[in-house]
Amino acid sequence: MNGQGQLPDLKVIAFDVFGTVVDWHSGIAAEVAQVLPDVDSGAFALAWRRGYQPAMKTVMARIASGEGGFTLLDDLHLGILEHVLAEFGVTHLDDERKRELNRAWHRLPAWPDAVQGLTRLKRKYTICTLSNGNIGLLTDMAKRAGLPWDCVLSAEVFRAYKPDSRTYLGVAKVFDVPPEQVMLAAAHHDDLAAARGCGLLTGYIERPLEFGVANPKDVSPQPGNTLHARDIDALADLLGC
Amino acid sequence: MNGQGQLPDLKVIAFDVFGTVVDWHSGIAAEVAQVLPDVDSGAFALAWRRGYQPAMKTVMARIASGEGGFTLLDDLHLGILEHVLAEFGVTHLDDERKRELNRAWHRLPAWPDAVQGLTRLKRKYTICTLSNGNIGLLTDMAKRAGLPWDCVLSAEVFRAYKPDSRTYLGVAKVFDVPPEQVMLAAAHHDDLAAARGCGLLTGYIERPLEFGVANPKDVSPQPGNTLHARDIDALADLLGC
Repeated sequence: MNGQGQLPDLKVIAFDVFGTVVDWHSGIAAEVAQVLPDVDSGAFALAWRRGYQPAMKTVMARIASGEGGFTLLDDLHLGILEHVLAEFGVTHLDDERKRELNRAWHRLPAWPDAVQGLTRLKRKYTICTLSNGNIGLLTDMAKRAGLPWDCVLSAEVFRAYKPDSRTYLGVAKVFDVPPEQVMLAAAHHDDLAAARGCGLLTGYIERPLEFGVANPKDVSPQPGNTLHARDIDALADLLGC
Repeated sequence: MNGQGQLPDLKVIAFDVFGTVVDWHSGIAAEVAQVLPDVDSGAFALAWRRGYQPAMKTVMARIASGEGGFTLLDDLHLGILEHVLAEFGVTHLDDERKRELNRAWHRLPAWPDAVQGLTRLKRKYTICTLSNGNIGLLTDMAKRAGLPWDCVLSAEVFRAYKPDSRTYLGVAKVFDVPPEQVMLAAAHHDDLAAARGCGLLTGYIERPLEFGVANPKDVSPQPGNTLHARDIDALADLLGC
């Protein structure tokens, strides 16, 4: 396929990060195993991530009702960690050690294809993050993992969280291009559907092991996505980079 | 001087951009000379930049009075351009050509030391922009000039312009560090003074030719700055990078 022929107007690719670019399950499980050798670290990682959706929904409802402001993902993660520690019967970590463990989200490893794939895409397109993670978290992560973003965009920039349309349309506005010149690349169909609803192109990235080798994910193609790629390096292939 | 010994707690260096990292006078003059061969391109560049301070003051007053929202620097620059074109008696540019000329600010050349200096500093510190330029402008510029920012911070992120304290303190907040672990590096003493007032460290960067070779600038050291460096590469020397 000739990407240039196929999507001649594409200018910007915005990437979802957790699960799409970095392997949160392995990264969190590895740090948990070090700090809490007696717990099931894989199950702990899943529980921590599972707490994200309801916590985010609570924050979004608070914002919608006019009661509360924006919350950094670091603070959300720390709040969820308290619950997960209780759930796993861990009572001996002091606040400093909890904060240090919480920063494991800043140190997540990139999927093996990510740095090479992004580096190839960057030659032809502007590449940025579009994550509900806070700017500091995403910047620390990029610096450590060598992710070559042109810029770090986040819910924190738009004061709105995905799947709010202000985030997807915000990317187009930042770069002063129409939405159809922006692609969201993500491993999650709900994120892609919301972006598509705003007029963006969409690229699905397969991440069958997002939830760990014990919990393979269905990565079969779904209609509606502009592109379907095995990984980020394969996305660069599809786009002729 | 041993930088590690001198500033052991420094974590983040935020850079002013126009004049400090890129050479706006040469860049604008060169593009003006191409588009408008009959005007004095150096004088045109100076006039365009001179319009910035009053235009920014008008926007800040409007925001302070609650009347108006945030304005992107691209839009400010375009408004000033209209005045400068009139001042220089230019009437033949259509809107599309004005917008194209306005994008010259996205294409400014880096000072010759900037890429190497930033690359050295990046090994040891988190380096970011802190500019009143909009995110899209700063990202385009970085991509073109090869500026290796860890992230692009801007008035657009903080919804406030320098010298508002929310910008300087915003950098510290983004990276979850106290203000004294952040340095502002800039070629302008008023910017540095405002940052110092917020508790940041300050690094003055000499740019004697910021206004062109015909208008050398006084770059003598002023008391109060933490460091005084000939250029960004010299700042890396001072910090032991």
